[in-house]
Amino acid sequence: MTKNSATQKNRAALLCRLLRRFYDKDWVSGTGGGICAATGPKTVLMAPTGVHKEEVRPSDLFVVDRMTGGVIRPPRNRSLAVSECNPIFCLIMTQRKVGSVMHSHALSAVLAADLSEDRDHFIIEGLEMLKGVRGVSNQAKHAVPVIRNTPRERELVDQIRRALEAPVFSESFCILVRNHGAYIWGEDLWEAKRHAEIYHFLFEAVVARSRRGRNGWGQI
Amino acid sequence: MTKNSATQKNRAALLCRLLRRFYDKDWVSGTGGGICAATGPKTVLMAPTGVHKEEVRPSDLFVVDRMTGGVIRPPRNRSLAVSECNPIFCLIMTQRKVGSVMHSHALSAVLAADLSEDRDHFIIEGLEMLKGVRGVSNQAKHAVPVIRNTPRERELVDQIRRALEAPVFSESFCILVRNHGAYIWGEDLWEAKRHAEIYHFLFEAVVARSRRGRNGWGQI
Amino acid sequence: MTKNSATQKNRAALLCRLLRRFYDKDWVSGTGGGICAATGPKTVLMAPTGVHKEEVRPSDLFVVDRMTGGVIRPPRNRSLAVSECNPIFCLIMTQRKVGSVMHSHALSAVLAADLSEDRDHFIIEGLEMLKGVRGVSNQAKHAVPVIRNTPRERELVDQIRRALEAPVFSESFCILVRNHGAYIWGEDLWEAKRHAEIYHFLFEAVVARSRRGRNGWGQI
Amino acid sequence: MTKNSATQKNRAALLCRLLRRFYDKDWVSGTGGGICAATGPKTVLMAPTGVHKEEVRPSDLFVVDRMTGGVIRPPRNRSLAVSECNPIFCLIMTQRKVGSVMHSHALSAVLAADLSEDRDHFIIEGLEMLKGVRGVSNQAKHAVPVIRNTPRERELVDQIRRALEAPVFSESFCILVRNHGAYIWGEDLWEAKRHAEIYHFLFEAVVARSRRGRNGWGQI
Repeated sequence: MTKNSATQKNRAALLCRLLRRFYDKDWVSGTGGGICAATGPKTVLMAPTGVHKEEVRPSDLFVVDRMTGGVIRPPRNRSLAVSECNPIFCLIMTQRKVGSVMHSHALSAVLAADLSEDRDHFIIEGLEMLKGVRGVSNQAKHAVPVIRNTPRERELVDQIRRALEAPVFSESFCILVRNHGAYIWGEDLWEAKRHAEIYHFLFEAVVARSRRGRNGWGQI
Repeated sequence: MTKNSATQKNRAALLCRLLRRFYDKDWVSGTGGGICAATGPKTVLMAPTGVHKEEVRPSDLFVVDRMTGGVIRPPRNRSLAVSECNPIFCLIMTQRKVGSVMHSHALSAVLAADLSEDRDHFIIEGLEMLKGVRGVSNQAKHAVPVIRNTPRERELVDQIRRALEAPVFSESFCILVRNHGAYIWGEDLWEAKRHAEIYHFLFEAVVARSRRGRNGWGQI
Repeated sequence: MTKNSATQKNRAALLCRLLRRFYDKDWVSGTGGGICAATGPKTVLMAPTGVHKEEVRPSDLFVVDRMTGGVIRPPRNRSLAVSECNPIFCLIMTQRKVGSVMHSHALSAVLAADLSEDRDHFIIEGLEMLKGVRGVSNQAKHAVPVIRNTPRERELVDQIRRALEAPVFSESFCILVRNHGAYIWGEDLWEAKRHAEIYHFLFEAVVARSRRGRNGWGQI
Repeated sequence: MTKNSATQKNRAALLCRLLRRFYDKDWVSGTGGGICAATGPKTVLMAPTGVHKEEVRPSDLFVVDRMTGGVIRPPRNRSLAVSECNPIFCLIMTQRKVGSVMHSHALSAVLAADLSEDRDHFIIEGLEMLKGVRGVSNQAKHAVPVIRNTPRERELVDQIRRALEAPVFSESFCILVRNHGAYIWGEDLWEAKRHAEIYHFLFEAVVARSRRGRNGWGQI
């Protein structure tokens, strides 16, 4: 086994392990959500669409071209199709130069996006856990973009590109999709996992505080 | 071992595994709730009544005639009686031409039914997770029937038949029973499990949004 | 190994398994709460006091005289002392002729008792899960006694005796202790476990409904 | 293996086991939080900073000088740095003569601190679980200090020293840090774990009761 294939094998096992953990947290239930992981500058592992995420095995994963989203190696089971998130995952990895993106269908993400009402973002502040986002201090007013949902996942691409390009959101490793969930990323699987835990904590915190009429979110 | 008996054995093991998972989610606690799975056009596996669902083993399952509900093969342990849901499970499988039905006693199902007040349904809208219901888009106003509870489970049959026959509920894979829980189905165990995760998410979402006075449910 | 000692060994293992499960449900955290199980007409297994309940092993259990509460056989580890609940467990087993009692420190039990305000009971109604209590229908107005907390656990005994003797509470398998938790019992470990799951569901349901101003609890 | 190294090995394994449990309870998610354990009068085991706490293995731990906080033995993996909590852990162990301190990033700790508004403490009363804090009765008005958050963890030291020295807080085994979490300690790992479970229960209880306008917290 070459070093590359060993790395790819380990990464595939870790990706599946994180999917099971995300399932246990109710972030990827009902076959929703997912995660991808780069295995080199040009290749990325991606789960199939429409499968129970906690049941995904390494042999179910696709190897996808990180630039084009084209399938380089499908899994043995030819009835599987690659994740609907494919173009979004590739866009975020390219634009933000990161190696892993997760997609959450958590209720806390939906309820946090609800708090933004008709604005294109919301601000998180006054929480130590902000320090868990790379480069962010606990004194920050952290702006997270919120975009509208669309009938098909791939139709989110234009709004996501604009959010990624907006200087005001340059510190965010997360995009909230109204009525839907969130995309959260990091340099590798472990940072994406840490950011996922941090942002979901922040969502739950702002939702809980808003119930008490406390200002933990707002406008830029 | 013939192919049929191998399939039946696998399905029995999966059915028990899903019961344990449903227990962990608090959907079948206190011996309540359950799930069934067709093993052929005429036969269906069903758990016993009044047992701790997370403790059910494949050898505890009944094989039941899908049309009549009659017991074809009881489990070795002759003190067990077949699920009280038997006639409801058979009715739903026949009317909707599906192979698996689960019955949930989740609190979120009870609280969601509370929101319908005295109407015979409620509408779920504005949530991506609606796409997890086969044939439903995230733009849908998805109507879920709500029926009254009765002293005995089998007395629900007439209301369930009417709900299944009502054209307005033709897209629903779920019937809510006020003060009680929900019946949720799918073409096989995996779709029933996906639909169960989706509908419970939708219940939790509408309950959480109703606390904020937000309109995530309504009238047809 | 005689049949009796085999039974006692199995029961001890089950008792420890249920303690771990109760811990996972946050009913016996911080060394609080517990469960006992009769092993014969005169003997009962009881956990030590002040230990982490999810860590209890069969060899840590006391064998106690069911009538007097006297220790018949202490565990090998002589630094252990028997559960503070000992006199309460024995009183309930004797008065109600049951073989198992569990003691919960669940937050939902405390919040449910809060709803009773200054009355000596509260009524649960309009919930299918009432059928999980032996002998109770889903049409019942189920009266659960609520007693005042005392500085020491054993000082609860008089109030518990009065609650057990009150005809109005004859259908209840539960006593709520204000600011404290609940005692819940059944004919054996399995029924005590089922009743524990049922009553905790009922507590959570009435607390959730009371947030919406709905009447799911009241006066006799 | 000498007795001391055997003890240290067992303690390291237990420390890692408790970190996994705290992670499962959402107290140390996103690499936040932690726990330390003395292994003798002069030495203490401490986890690295910035790592996923549920993944920490015994071989990842630092041995630190309990008085000075200096690293006595780093882990084999030289890319690891010792916990940011190091000076705070050492201060609390020295001042309170205890052998273990845990640091929680639980949402319930943040929401409990919110309830103190601009006071330097809050009072917990009317809960049996207070008896789980060593030396505290269920009749106590238990005062827990609440301090302000600072940009860096080590800048909390002065406020923590004052809270530890204040006679009014002498019964508390917990300091709440506004917008951040809590430090909780005990004589050893097991007491720190029990106190952590007790205080988190108390946080959840006062937050739930405050939603109902009930007075479960207040001023000295």
